[in-house]
Amino acid sequence: MTHATHPFDDALALDPGVPDHFSGRTTPGYWNMVGPYGGITAATLLQAVLRHPLLLGEPLSLTVNYAAAVAEGPFTVQATPVRTNRSTQHWMVTVQQANAGGEQMVTTTATVVTAARRETWGVSDQPMPAVPAPAQCQRTPPMFRVEWLNRYEMRPVTGELPTQWDDSGHTSLTQLWLRDAPERALDFAALAAMCDVFYPRVWLRRARHVPAGTVSITVYFHAGSALLAQTGDGYLLAQARAQEFRNGFFDQSAQLWNQAGSLLATSHQIVYYKE
Amino acid sequence: MTHATHPFDDALALDPGVPDHFSGRTTPGYWNMVGPYGGITAATLLQAVLRHPLLLGEPLSLTVNYAAAVAEGPFTVQATPVRTNRSTQHWMVTVQQANAGGEQMVTTTATVVTAARRETWGVSDQPMPAVPAPAQCQRTPPMFRVEWLNRYEMRPVTGELPTQWDDSGHTSLTQLWLRDAPERALDFAALAAMCDVFYPRVWLRRARHVPAGTVSITVYFHAGSALLAQTGDGYLLAQARAQEFRNGFFDQSAQLWNQAGSLLATSHQIVYYKE
Repeated sequence: MTHATHPFDDALALDPGVPDHFSGRTTPGYWNMVGPYGGITAATLLQAVLRHPLLLGEPLSLTVNYAAAVAEGPFTVQATPVRTNRSTQHWMVTVQQANAGGEQMVTTTATVVTAARRETWGVSDQPMPAVPAPAQCQRTPPMFRVEWLNRYEMRPVTGELPTQWDDSGHTSLTQLWLRDAPERALDFAALAAMCDVFYPRVWLRRARHVPAGTVSITVYFHAGSALLAQTGDGYLLAQARAQEFRNGFFDQSAQLWNQAGSLLATSHQIVYYKE
Repeated sequence: MTHATHPFDDALALDPGVPDHFSGRTTPGYWNMVGPYGGITAATLLQAVLRHPLLLGEPLSLTVNYAAAVAEGPFTVQATPVRTNRSTQHWMVTVQQANAGGEQMVTTTATVVTAARRETWGVSDQPMPAVPAPAQCQRTPPMFRVEWLNRYEMRPVTGELPTQWDDSGHTSLTQLWLRDAPERALDFAALAAMCDVFYPRVWLRRARHVPAGTVSITVYFHAGSALLAQTGDGYLLAQARAQEFRNGFFDQSAQLWNQAGSLLATSHQIVYYKE
């Protein structure tokens, strides 16, 4: 029996270099149309923080700004802890890649906050919606031909990709059961990546296929490592909807619960669309 | 007749220094408990981007991470355009202040995306809730004794500050009509500041007064300058609710509409709370 590296771990492989710097490279397994899947870029730069020797605590918030497509090949993640407090730590992160002239260019910027979690009062105001169990929802093949979609098992509940691009859309809500394919125990990097799995809300709301791409995504982690461990390789219910489409940009709000109904992460993004 | 500087413009006054650097100082008008109101810090660092000679386009997204309280006195905003594309520009921003030993320390980190807006298809999926008009909602005095609350006219619709801290809370929803006091024509910086006006959701949800403070806030601007100009000094309907309270942190989602019902901004934050 061989234990092959999971494609997700392969994509997240980083070599530490000079302080605050890590070398990585794109992998075919998470390729999108003109660069890596945005979720894998978010996961990779979070991984640099998690690998950093000065790390304090666990991820609390993550904002990733996609300044340019990452090209196939090597890149450098620079993760700098710019302020460390007693229970929170603030990080500035960039992904850089050499351009044709050999000049290092920023492709991605990010900020990360890590924090020590404590036992406190708590409550959820966003209960998991009542939906059929994963086994009752049919697993669908990748919605369109991009390699990274093969890295997720998706069982849509509602809001599947339109089959007719006829401007008949009336909702921006998608719900689906989701896990890594092949299965893999959930961790912070995987959860961050999963926050970006939704196809562009504009395609659903308009029932029209227009160019679109995430400009900035924010993830708030509500789960600590203990809850992630409990979740293991189980399904997550992932839900997304938009609030406003205007002047070439729309926003998306998303929630990801584990099957037991715990809200693991909430996420938001602002997305470019054409026309 | 004298034309005194509006306290908001006074707070946002910045002196350009060496490239990418701006000098500012805290003002008493927006003082919170142990530092300036978070909204004024967000507005100030956005203002540095807006004042930058290389600025392209208008604000699209803003993420501000409050790493430490800003102390009374001078500070430096460093705003760097790290990537400029044809229609978007990506900024990394810090606020720095000298500590007792004279060392420059980062108090605040931020990323900003500015973008050129274009005429496109659009629709709102988050209509303004049906609420009484501002004139029908009573203007309330500041909820508690901090100076910055005097800089806003607030007319609560629902979700006012509890009057009894008796653990009787059951909702995290607040809606209020809002404008600057004295009145001031809305601009991007003022809109950013207004996204942070809500008192901590944990106080409402628990009906319990516990220490709390914003760790990170993100604002998505759906309005361009033309829509802001139309809004002028009119009231905004501001709405906020939480999704999850757990292990010392909760998130908040907010929407701000103008009186005509246009969604100007959506915003999210993750907030520390004790106990």
